[in-house]
Amino acid sequence: MALIVQKFGGTSVADIDKIKNVAEKVIKVKKAGNQVVVVLSAMAGETDRLINLAHNAADSPDEREYDSLISTGEQVTVTLLSIVLNSMGYHARSFLGFQVKILTDMAYKKARISLIDTGAIRKELKKGTIIVVAGFQGVDKDNNITTLGRGGSDTSAVALAAALKADQCDIYTDVDGVYTTDPNVCAKARRLDKISYDEMLEMAMTGAKVLQPRSVEMAKKYNVPLYVKSTFSDKGGTLVTREDKDMEREIISGVTYDRDQVKITVVHVPDKPGVAADLFTPLSNKNIFVDMIIQNASLEGFTDLTFTVSKKDLKDAQKIIENTAKKVGANKVEVDDQVAKISIIGVGMASHSGVAARMFKTLAREGVNIMMISTSEIKISCIIQRKYMELAVSVLHDAFELEKKKVK
Amino acid sequence: MALIVQKFGGTSVADIDKIKNVAEKVIKVKKAGNQVVVVLSAMAGETDRLINLAHNAADSPDEREYDSLISTGEQVTVTLLSIVLNSMGYHARSFLGFQVKILTDMAYKKARISLIDTGAIRKELKKGTIIVVAGFQGVDKDNNITTLGRGGSDTSAVALAAALKADQCDIYTDVDGVYTTDPNVCAKARRLDKISYDEMLEMAMTGAKVLQPRSVEMAKKYNVPLYVKSTFSDKGGTLVTREDKDMEREIISGVTYDRDQVKITVVHVPDKPGVAADLFTPLSNKNIFVDMIIQNASLEGFTDLTFTVSKKDLKDAQKIIENTAKKVGANKVEVDDQVAKISIIGVGMASHSGVAARMFKTLAREGVNIMMISTSEIKISCIIQRKYMELAVSVLHDAFELEKKKVK
Repeated sequence: MALIVQKFGGTSVADIDKIKNVAEKVIKVKKAGNQVVVVLSAMAGETDRLINLAHNAADSPDEREYDSLISTGEQVTVTLLSIVLNSMGYHARSFLGFQVKILTDMAYKKARISLIDTGAIRKELKKGTIIVVAGFQGVDKDNNITTLGRGGSDTSAVALAAALKADQCDIYTDVDGVYTTDPNVCAKARRLDKISYDEMLEMAMTGAKVLQPRSVEMAKKYNVPLYVKSTFSDKGGTLVTREDKDMEREIISGVTYDRDQVKITVVHVPDKPGVAADLFTPLSNKNIFVDMIIQNASLEGFTDLTFTVSKKDLKDAQKIIENTAKKVGANKVEVDDQVAKISIIGVGMASHSGVAARMFKTLAREGVNIMMISTSEIKISCIIQRKYMELAVSVLHDAFELEKKKVK
Repeated sequence: MALIVQKFGGTSVADIDKIKNVAEKVIKVKKAGNQVVVVLSAMAGETDRLINLAHNAADSPDEREYDSLISTGEQVTVTLLSIVLNSMGYHARSFLGFQVKILTDMAYKKARISLIDTGAIRKELKKGTIIVVAGFQGVDKDNNITTLGRGGSDTSAVALAAALKADQCDIYTDVDGVYTTDPNVCAKARRLDKISYDEMLEMAMTGAKVLQPRSVEMAKKYNVPLYVKSTFSDKGGTLVTREDKDMEREIISGVTYDRDQVKITVVHVPDKPGVAADLFTPLSNKNIFVDMIIQNASLEGFTDLTFTVSKKDLKDAQKIIENTAKKVGANKVEVDDQVAKISIIGVGMASHSGVAARMFKTLAREGVNIMMISTSEIKISCIIQRKYMELAVSVLHDAFELEKKKVK
């Protein structure tokens, strides 16, 4: 008898009919003789509705109250699924964060799970109960409700799987797995049967939306096998797991893109020690995440500093950076929001030479100018003009022959 | 410095603007130097929306899950009010049932409060925090969420006032107090400044919707002064309190009606010991509340038994009673759903003779036939034909001169 955690996202529980469909999936796994723990998101759109209510109530809603408010979305779906399962003759029981209990730190809106008490769930599992846990939420040590941030239900599922030492964690979503790239952008995109945690993490961090990066990190840390599957079809699926020899044969596994980038350049900055720190410390103090940074070669004691931030942070970042730019004696600040980040990812990169060169040549052949580059052991990212994004995805997908499955 | 509990119903928190209006009322009381504990219902219509979801999910939704589902309505309003209050510069903090904690028995959908832990609330009150408690909900000893039944937020408010030894409990609603009768039915209806717990209880039990009977019972038991006030006006208000000498001067305080009654007659029942028990035990086993019962004089060993039940129970009651009627050898079962109950209530009734006679004469003068009568020390109720209901309310209101305030 295996213990399986099944996580269903918002589109999978968007209405009662869809919840009944989820119930069928759950029962199938239960009937096969497994113990089942289900983790649910809120109905698609519901969290946004609640966030709007909060912002209609106040410009900057109190964070404790905000978290308690938006956590109701998952309370609705877990109780409804439990009602459906019970009416179909399967004993099911919903668990909220405080009922499990899923202990987190006190960082509202982006809490991190510190401990999961598995006692109550194990007791019910032994009785044959199907457990239905509210994703996205926990409680801090004073029983205040906290939430884990967008996509937090993936993290809830993996954390529960790790705490319960589950045999696998199935992430059900509206696509049937992880693809070499977005099929909406490139028709030749191919579903991957298997991908390593590290590659999945880089893909999630560089724009693939299928999994929340933190959940992949956690799955890697606790070695939880993750299956990405479709709620609406029994076919397909991608296993996210430890790196193995098969994976190294593939030079790259995927091409990702991210439209949510803005490039900011601070022009004519005095090139002396401490200036970069002066510029970036105020940003990090405001929790603005700076993704890529490049600095031009110094010319007569001056340089240009270019970096990217997320679009949602542009307004705040621009205000802060214009202020600091003046202080350090820079000439001006330029913003370019017509950019995109394009990345190639693969564990094979380390053992195959010339991957970067092939990427740059492929883009150059199409007249795509590369504005910024950043690399890791298994990833190369470039900032390019937005208008070339779809083209770049396609030609890179072709150049690395991603449509072909490598022979094992 | 007084400690005041303020309870606002669903129409008072129906949207963000109304919640802001509630915030003003709360701040006014806080600014006057009081400690404030607010209790809220769900937004008008929200509990019904959630109940519909549950019934779309299953015909007989699991009761544990049902309670956890519908309790989210209050979670939304208490967090929104707290967001508004905090944004206006007043420190406020929402409390859910498990956070207080409001301990109940395990009877889902109609739980009774057994204990309220006032520790956490008192600690926050000392800091000057405005406390905003979710009405209608509690938790049982195993941390399962329970609800107190319809109108349960009144009970939450009074129970909190009792536990905290509050100086008063203000019940804000969409009317500005308790009236001698429904102003929509009788234009001469007059607002009462004061009414006794017992009278209020009888009025609530015989059809007045302004307060939930259980909350009045509890207020009486713990001697909590209840003020019924309007959320939308600063005028008016009715104090529900202990009986005093002023009250005895009034013969009757109010006329109530209840359209939610159905009369069932079991015809030609053998008149022998145990038959009534045989008829009513199956009903009470199914939690069907039988209100009034009359039995005709026995004729040749047979009698007719007539009783009333709530409309919502008619289908179940009829099925059960037709079954039992056959067993005990009765002729048939007759149902009359074109009836109404009309009641007069007053503590002065005990010390004034002829009240019943005046009621019956008044109705007779208008040709209103009385089908059933039941009395208590401070109440007389009659079942009459539905079509005479409005007329009966008016003529009784006139006959007892309820439009005139008695000189103190």
